[in-house]
Amino acid sequence: MARTSAEVEQQLSRLEIETPSWGYGDSGTRFATFSQPGCPRDPFERIDDAAEVHRLTAAAPAVALHFPWDRVDDVAALRRHAESHGLRIGAVNPNLFQEPEYKLGSIANPDRAVRQRAVAHLVECVRIATELGSTAQSLWLADGVNYVGQDDLRDRRERILECLQEVYAELPPEQQLLLEYKPFEPAFYATDLADWGSALLFCQRLGERAAVLVDIGHHLHGANIEQIVAILAAEGRLGGFHFNGRRYADDDLIVGSVNPFELFAIFVELGTELPRLTIDQAHNVEAKVEAMTLSVVNVQEAYAKALLVDRDALAAAQADGDVLGAHELLLDAFRRDVRDLCGRVRVAAGGVADPVAALRESGYAERIARERGSVAAVSAGGNG
Amino acid sequence: MARTSAEVEQQLSRLEIETPSWGYGDSGTRFATFSQPGCPRDPFERIDDAAEVHRLTAAAPAVALHFPWDRVDDVAALRRHAESHGLRIGAVNPNLFQEPEYKLGSIANPDRAVRQRAVAHLVECVRIATELGSTAQSLWLADGVNYVGQDDLRDRRERILECLQEVYAELPPEQQLLLEYKPFEPAFYATDLADWGSALLFCQRLGERAAVLVDIGHHLHGANIEQIVAILAAEGRLGGFHFNGRRYADDDLIVGSVNPFELFAIFVELGTELPRLTIDQAHNVEAKVEAMTLSVVNVQEAYAKALLVDRDALAAAQADGDVLGAHELLLDAFRRDVRDLCGRVRVAAGGVADPVAALRESGYAERIARERGSVAAVSAGGNG
Amino acid sequence: MARTSAEVEQQLSRLEIETPSWGYGDSGTRFATFSQPGCPRDPFERIDDAAEVHRLTAAAPAVALHFPWDRVDDVAALRRHAESHGLRIGAVNPNLFQEPEYKLGSIANPDRAVRQRAVAHLVECVRIATELGSTAQSLWLADGVNYVGQDDLRDRRERILECLQEVYAELPPEQQLLLEYKPFEPAFYATDLADWGSALLFCQRLGERAAVLVDIGHHLHGANIEQIVAILAAEGRLGGFHFNGRRYADDDLIVGSVNPFELFAIFVELGTELPRLTIDQAHNVEAKVEAMTLSVVNVQEAYAKALLVDRDALAAAQADGDVLGAHELLLDAFRRDVRDLCGRVRVAAGGVADPVAALRESGYAERIARERGSVAAVSAGGNG
Amino acid sequence: MARTSAEVEQQLSRLEIETPSWGYGDSGTRFATFSQPGCPRDPFERIDDAAEVHRLTAAAPAVALHFPWDRVDDVAALRRHAESHGLRIGAVNPNLFQEPEYKLGSIANPDRAVRQRAVAHLVECVRIATELGSTAQSLWLADGVNYVGQDDLRDRRERILECLQEVYAELPPEQQLLLEYKPFEPAFYATDLADWGSALLFCQRLGERAAVLVDIGHHLHGANIEQIVAILAAEGRLGGFHFNGRRYADDDLIVGSVNPFELFAIFVELGTELPRLTIDQAHNVEAKVEAMTLSVVNVQEAYAKALLVDRDALAAAQADGDVLGAHELLLDAFRRDVRDLCGRVRVAAGGVADPVAALRESGYAERIARERGSVAAVSAGGNG
Repeated sequence: MARTSAEVEQQLSRLEIETPSWGYGDSGTRFATFSQPGCPRDPFERIDDAAEVHRLTAAAPAVALHFPWDRVDDVAALRRHAESHGLRIGAVNPNLFQEPEYKLGSIANPDRAVRQRAVAHLVECVRIATELGSTAQSLWLADGVNYVGQDDLRDRRERILECLQEVYAELPPEQQLLLEYKPFEPAFYATDLADWGSALLFCQRLGERAAVLVDIGHHLHGANIEQIVAILAAEGRLGGFHFNGRRYADDDLIVGSVNPFELFAIFVELGTELPRLTIDQAHNVEAKVEAMTLSVVNVQEAYAKALLVDRDALAAAQADGDVLGAHELLLDAFRRDVRDLCGRVRVAAGGVADPVAALRESGYAERIARERGSVAAVSAGGNG
Repeated sequence: MARTSAEVEQQLSRLEIETPSWGYGDSGTRFATFSQPGCPRDPFERIDDAAEVHRLTAAAPAVALHFPWDRVDDVAALRRHAESHGLRIGAVNPNLFQEPEYKLGSIANPDRAVRQRAVAHLVECVRIATELGSTAQSLWLADGVNYVGQDDLRDRRERILECLQEVYAELPPEQQLLLEYKPFEPAFYATDLADWGSALLFCQRLGERAAVLVDIGHHLHGANIEQIVAILAAEGRLGGFHFNGRRYADDDLIVGSVNPFELFAIFVELGTELPRLTIDQAHNVEAKVEAMTLSVVNVQEAYAKALLVDRDALAAAQADGDVLGAHELLLDAFRRDVRDLCGRVRVAAGGVADPVAALRESGYAERIARERGSVAAVSAGGNG
Repeated sequence: MARTSAEVEQQLSRLEIETPSWGYGDSGTRFATFSQPGCPRDPFERIDDAAEVHRLTAAAPAVALHFPWDRVDDVAALRRHAESHGLRIGAVNPNLFQEPEYKLGSIANPDRAVRQRAVAHLVECVRIATELGSTAQSLWLADGVNYVGQDDLRDRRERILECLQEVYAELPPEQQLLLEYKPFEPAFYATDLADWGSALLFCQRLGERAAVLVDIGHHLHGANIEQIVAILAAEGRLGGFHFNGRRYADDDLIVGSVNPFELFAIFVELGTELPRLTIDQAHNVEAKVEAMTLSVVNVQEAYAKALLVDRDALAAAQADGDVLGAHELLLDAFRRDVRDLCGRVRVAAGGVADPVAALRESGYAERIARERGSVAAVSAGGNG
Repeated sequence: MARTSAEVEQQLSRLEIETPSWGYGDSGTRFATFSQPGCPRDPFERIDDAAEVHRLTAAAPAVALHFPWDRVDDVAALRRHAESHGLRIGAVNPNLFQEPEYKLGSIANPDRAVRQRAVAHLVECVRIATELGSTAQSLWLADGVNYVGQDDLRDRRERILECLQEVYAELPPEQQLLLEYKPFEPAFYATDLADWGSALLFCQRLGERAAVLVDIGHHLHGANIEQIVAILAAEGRLGGFHFNGRRYADDDLIVGSVNPFELFAIFVELGTELPRLTIDQAHNVEAKVEAMTLSVVNVQEAYAKALLVDRDALAAAQADGDVLGAHELLLDAFRRDVRDLCGRVRVAAGGVADPVAALRESGYAERIARERGSVAAVSAGGNG
């Protein structure tokens, strides 16, 4: 039996999305970063933007932070600033890819001193997370090699395991360690955590609070993401998502902008046991706060449609081997226009019916542009 | 210190490759199968062809079989036939993809009766393998679904596990269960054993004699096969290879014909602890016995070059973070012309210096064409 | 200004889709073909199935044929049979990939005698098309090579051009020559007509009635099909489509079942100047007539949504560089539930509101299974 | 008949490779740029590094420049500096991707003022090239869109054509206009010049001195680059190459480091009519001058092996339909160790036998590090 509309709305109202502090700042490709007017000047202003997205959508009550990018002198003040906007701090994201020392890797680096430095940063992030009330370390490891033979792939795995074990030992009971995989970029021959299997093996060794984070854009062409999700969930190791959209590589576009049917299929697979859902995008050419708002709306709609699937009829058709009957039950849910339904849920939760339109009407973008000003474009080198 | 030439030759002489009985028969695509003159008319003649490849290369002493394709009334006679040619029976490959009952899957099928039939076939193959003196079941599972919603992905995993456990319980101690993964084809939405992680999880549940089989052509674009090999070997779960070449999908071309540097890199990763090495190709347009002979030669040369890598210098360059120094050590080995070296090893082992030339001169292809005759082309339907 | 609902319905009512005779028969992969009950026993019964799809959808008034698969003694009778069902004959599809002679290619074959045979078949198809009242030759060329060096790629292009020029010279003025490209399969190193650029170059040489046919499944991962469509249309060389769905290779699934947003984007690019639209799918595991009916419905819905896009607002947003404003105008149309709208158009044109449900209720599948019976499964060889 | 060794050496000695000024400077990914000691501080020092590569390899007599990166007050002085090292200026590469104005495109931008600015830069580069004695504009156009609907794809093509026609009209007779295509990055939905067909269509409209530039890394997975080369050469529109290596996206690794057999196959297709050959790489983690030297060596070896192919025997095997015989003739050439042969050619031309070893022994890297010093790492933002 399909859920009633009331049941769908009730379930949908529980959806909580984390938006990323770094998604409000300037981003770009290796070719150029185009600065936008109104770009937040500090972590506090990033939280202000996140608060605006939550005000409109009523579904984005947490902000994921990135260190050292969100480093402030007074961590407690940052937490209070978030809470004063009705937000909490989401996952803490350490950064192991920018320092010159990490050129040949961080915790996989052949140089022990570099690995120790990396571990120290990870442990510091655990401490910061505790202060912020965060319940997860969300670690993307850029480590890898560019050339066959550059380093020993098995030795690198052992180094990583040893370092992660050190960090895991420091985790307080309320924090999870999320390991994010990615097939390539910045490494172009072998990335140490290249796929979900690689990440899962480390989690198995670390302990129960280690889980895999699935970034939509971190797969080879053709990978079936919802199937990976099903496996990780069945294994009790689905730690969460980084949502975005992609056609080619790790494009970091707006979630749902490339294949909304895939996003729907992921939510069908998840059912109502949702893990941590975080947006991770780079809004290089589009207005950032609007992009984030649209992203939250896209996720809400995908989840709403998934909730509308008649699960009993689906199970029956599947058991009968009725290939098209089962498939058509999903189509039936996907084809519906759920904008009104989602609008009602948002309004009931304190948000607005049409967040993107409301944002445009509010003049928020113009106001922050005025107040914060613009910075000059920062351009990176490199050639096509 | 690099190996001496004598050490390389000694190590190379231990290389053993299994050729597949099905690789000597007609094959094709969904569009057409083009029959070749001299195609073996029964399993005995397939073994004759395998014996010819071993006679020339001195490195192909085993024949992998496929059931029911290689079904004979007198299994012991087939074994004796192989042994009389100096061959042994390699892995036994069950077939769960051709019967009409398997349209919606074999051991993942929602219908219990179908699953039971599939298990019965698998168990029968265990018995056959015992009679043949084979030490491995090599299972490729074509199960999967074509449409979102067609079946429940988690239920399918549970059904598979249950069935595999039944089969594993029947395995005699000398037999391994090799699980082969494949991302797609014949299933085009989700394949149940789609990647190495999926296969490994089943192996972990089954027991120590379950291991993953890596088919070169069963990966998404960009997958780093040698890294997968490194991980599986480190986990003690690298069961073996199906060697072939591919550019696009599961093209089943001659191994080493697309990127010989990748084949070399795989052997560099393996070192001298070689798992079961089987060729699995479809020679649609080329002469089959020659194709198989060239395949064995290509594998020998790749292994020879890998043995020539100066491992001590490599480890030192890697420890120093000398990116190009390390890479160049691999290049140095790859660039060598190892044909004479391989020829010497073959001759010392009873083979010939130039197997492909010797095959052409021997008139073997013409002889079997005369003796076995030709069959009419069998064409499949379908449109591009 | 957006179209009124009446304008959309009027435009939508003009949509005409060709269904393929070969899509009603058994199909499969290289591993197996699973026969379905009720499979048509001859071209006349294939047309009966096409007529049923048109009866339900009122948008599939043409049937594409394939020769020699649809060869009959009395071509005029076949045409009358179609017309008696209110259908016309769509494109004629020659077959140059099944005969043993074509193992190394048809019109690209190094052997002149083989090329002449292929040209003779193509010319015969022109004659058949004339008898059938068809206005297009739709040629998919499977020619290609499997190994580097197998043949000279430039010579092959010259042979193809020469042969196509012979055929083009035979075309009556009312017939087009559509050239279909495909990146791989059955050729796995180089396919002679591998991409739209290759096909277009031949069309430029042949003349104005030569145009490119776009099969959705015939692209490398990431290719932007709607952009290719835009270019070909701008060049006056968009000859038509083969519609289907794909995730991996040339999967030939139901159109719109993988990414309905992409199908919508293609129709947005087409506007209202629609070229020949043909379905080309292989229904390996699903009910065939239902699959075809659903396919037509999916195409209708995609076109309906594209018609709902507010083109004036879109042009204004694009001119302003309003990235998200423009994108959201497409989202606005895509999110609508157009099932009622499409149902009204179908009913007005003599079809039914819900074709898939009506088909299931009609008992058509059961009736043809009873009348036509089942055939035994035909299995192809080959291994995973 | 195969070439004699002397003929091969003579032909090989004519090989001329352009190295890129930007390949000697710091590069990186969107995540980080790691500065290397000895990084050139200005265009003159970049030319010094190029001269060192040519001194060692005797095959890199030209330097491609990039503007505005290589802008100097005294253009004639830059030319004299190059000539004093025995170098000439290769292609001039305009830059249309870094200025804030180009956020939504350069010559495809909906804003006419932006297009005019871009045209002005292109025209200025024509003038600079004239002063430098360069014979080619090498244009990579980063233009594209990130979201469906963002801009009208056909309008963009018309804008591009109009702008390119303006630039083409300014070209002096000795300059070519090379158009480089790329499937994605920085644009992630549609890139205006996405593939060779798109680029070729513009060249056809512009005139005889417009030709397509093939960058090895600018293709979708599976694209057969040597086939594209064959087509463009046959059409008289192969303008040149940007050489590099790639596994995933536009990785910009060392040419030949991923699949040396593919590089060989490209040279087999080219024969001895070589177009402009330029290296375009980003040496993010490896020593830059050594990387460039190794790149030139890799290209020399690939060309040498291609020259060793027995063309007459190949043509005969191809004409006979001897699939493996033809393929094995290519293998025969590829398997040879051509290091001594290449070394002889280099020494005869004034270079050294083993350029990489000689570079390491020369202490060049240490000397420039000392003289030029190091700069602090420049890091870009963004998250994985």
